[in-house]
Amino acid sequence: MSKPLEGVKVLDLTRVLAGPYCTMMLANLGADVIKVERPGVGDDARSFGPFFEDGEESAYFASLNSGKRSISLNLKNEKDIEIFKRLVEKVDVVTENFRPGTMEKLGLGYETLKEINPEIIYAATSGFGHSGPDSKKAAYDMIVQAASGVMSITGEPDGSPVRVGVSVGDIVAGMFTATGIVSALHQRNTTGEGQKVDVAMLDGQVAILENAIARYMVSGEAPKPLGARHPSITPFQAFEAKDGWFVIAAGNDTLWGKLCEAIGREDLIDDSRFKTNADRSDNIEELNEVLGEELAKKTVDEWVEIIDNHGVPTSPINTVDKLFDYPQVQARNMLLDLDGYEEDMAVAGNPIKMTNLPEEDSKPRAPELGEHNEEVIDELLDGDRPKIEVV
Amino acid sequence: MSKPLEGVKVLDLTRVLAGPYCTMMLANLGADVIKVERPGVGDDARSFGPFFEDGEESAYFASLNSGKRSISLNLKNEKDIEIFKRLVEKVDVVTENFRPGTMEKLGLGYETLKEINPEIIYAATSGFGHSGPDSKKAAYDMIVQAASGVMSITGEPDGSPVRVGVSVGDIVAGMFTATGIVSALHQRNTTGEGQKVDVAMLDGQVAILENAIARYMVSGEAPKPLGARHPSITPFQAFEAKDGWFVIAAGNDTLWGKLCEAIGREDLIDDSRFKTNADRSDNIEELNEVLGEELAKKTVDEWVEIIDNHGVPTSPINTVDKLFDYPQVQARNMLLDLDGYEEDMAVAGNPIKMTNLPEEDSKPRAPELGEHNEEVIDELLDGDRPKIEVV
Repeated sequence: MSKPLEGVKVLDLTRVLAGPYCTMMLANLGADVIKVERPGVGDDARSFGPFFEDGEESAYFASLNSGKRSISLNLKNEKDIEIFKRLVEKVDVVTENFRPGTMEKLGLGYETLKEINPEIIYAATSGFGHSGPDSKKAAYDMIVQAASGVMSITGEPDGSPVRVGVSVGDIVAGMFTATGIVSALHQRNTTGEGQKVDVAMLDGQVAILENAIARYMVSGEAPKPLGARHPSITPFQAFEAKDGWFVIAAGNDTLWGKLCEAIGREDLIDDSRFKTNADRSDNIEELNEVLGEELAKKTVDEWVEIIDNHGVPTSPINTVDKLFDYPQVQARNMLLDLDGYEEDMAVAGNPIKMTNLPEEDSKPRAPELGEHNEEVIDELLDGDRPKIEVV
Repeated sequence: MSKPLEGVKVLDLTRVLAGPYCTMMLANLGADVIKVERPGVGDDARSFGPFFEDGEESAYFASLNSGKRSISLNLKNEKDIEIFKRLVEKVDVVTENFRPGTMEKLGLGYETLKEINPEIIYAATSGFGHSGPDSKKAAYDMIVQAASGVMSITGEPDGSPVRVGVSVGDIVAGMFTATGIVSALHQRNTTGEGQKVDVAMLDGQVAILENAIARYMVSGEAPKPLGARHPSITPFQAFEAKDGWFVIAAGNDTLWGKLCEAIGREDLIDDSRFKTNADRSDNIEELNEVLGEELAKKTVDEWVEIIDNHGVPTSPINTVDKLFDYPQVQARNMLLDLDGYEEDMAVAGNPIKMTNLPEEDSKPRAPELGEHNEEVIDELLDGDRPKIEVV
């Protein structure tokens, strides 16, 4: 059984997060990802904390680059550019997340690489994209979360601005790039030709705004942050128990009835203030007062068990440490040990489960800078190799 | 020029958000997406507000189902099941986001469909996945945001819980499913065989936790919400100007120097409290006091212009209405009109720009329930058609 992307060779110039997240997805699906790193320095993320292995290894880098190979090439040096171009002849995908224009300056833009290998799929992930007036601007996750409107609808009502705690600006762009690359691979099976994929972090954030745009179009008012509440379903939010917060998602009237039973307040089912979702949304403050009083009587664990037993979706607001004891997360292999280090290090597993993708108990370590110089040259340029300086 | 997924036929049983988001991505890439909806009712999202077209159309539904076709089939009715099975012979992908076990109860599980069509790619998006102890539980976006730890690192320090304002629980799962489907299509070009793709919303959230897991592994402490601040880079956060908030992302010492120049405080560059990123992070409260005082002197627009001119990444915290006047969003076609309605409706454009994907100025309307009953039966089961009841 081959993995879905087995045999696909990716020459990966990406650094830090958006691009490496994309190629991590491709590696998870079976692709051979060859990181091309700057000699002596490598992917900037190698110097990002937190560190482990007595301060020698970046956990940030390790968690994004598991199972990739690394070669060190100086793309400002003629001999190394020559090696890079010869590798381009042998691979399926070239991907980068430089500021637009950088590859052209190096003499390695898509138009050039396409001449070398017309089958090449060239994927660029950037802050603002390869077109438009802001194309050349630098972006960070924080910038696109703010610019796109995502930050404007996240946070407490009337509170200070809140960034989504995970770097969705980067990660979502990486995910869209991965879909673009695989779509291009699929099409190439028919056409025999490659193409360019161009994904912007800003575009990715606009694309996940989903119904916020529709709400604005209909109401004429820009959606605001709602804390942990659903904009139109009630009760569907976080509540405070005796010892902390948890969430209840009573998505319809049936679930509302079951929730009333769960908390021993069947009287609320026929309460005219709370009969339909519209009633409950209109009277949310009164409802929250009543529910708040009841829910303060037991702990999170007690309530989650009771409410869950009544078939109403509920969950503790888990902190990251809790995932390590979460049976469903374990059963799905969603936290895996990284092999090959002295210290324990865990990373997220592959969320795309497929028939042809065997589940794994652990993941391989991330490569040392230049670790696969010899191996890659042997394999891809067999024998005919101007030695790469191993750094 | 064909689009990357042109010719790919998707029989789409998904409802509401995660699944329809996935098939919207496939439609954007050129696939022919045929929604299979319950007669009389259809996708639940058809009844979700907000509404437009004099209350006749759900903007929520319209924004997720543009350009798909719709047929109405009652999968509890023998004749309709027969039609469904005959369609399965003719398509490439079947996708659903029911609670696990539902398709088996209908006699339409993957094992059955695979016998009908061994080339079929079967993709299921669910709350907790098709394995593990919680498999059969219902989930909503709010539940997986809470259960996964994403909510625990989003919000103000010591504030109330905050949900990510966009439904990343659903959307991220839809995105991973799309990548899985296209990877299976790619592999099928070689093997001639389909496979099953199984994506859980919970798994998707764990997969985007990225360095929160690494931080926990190294420090032994669960990461906490940080408002709009970066966990380890300073200054990299939201600041309050005279008339509102905006963000500055000074990702390294050079940018810090430029920021000092932009705000006319070159004296801070050599201030020993703020010399390196480590210094600035250690003395963040003092730093924020100094910066806060300066930044309160001008408006958001003034500061963004000045700081941007100095080459430091910055952005207003845009509300959704602002996107309609954002030149870069326009240039990238990331807000498009929906054709075919009386009232104006806009939706997000396609964030995956590809050579073989012509840019569009508008998007087609979402289908009426059962609008393509005749057409699809004509096309796929040519002539040989037990009439579908048009509802």
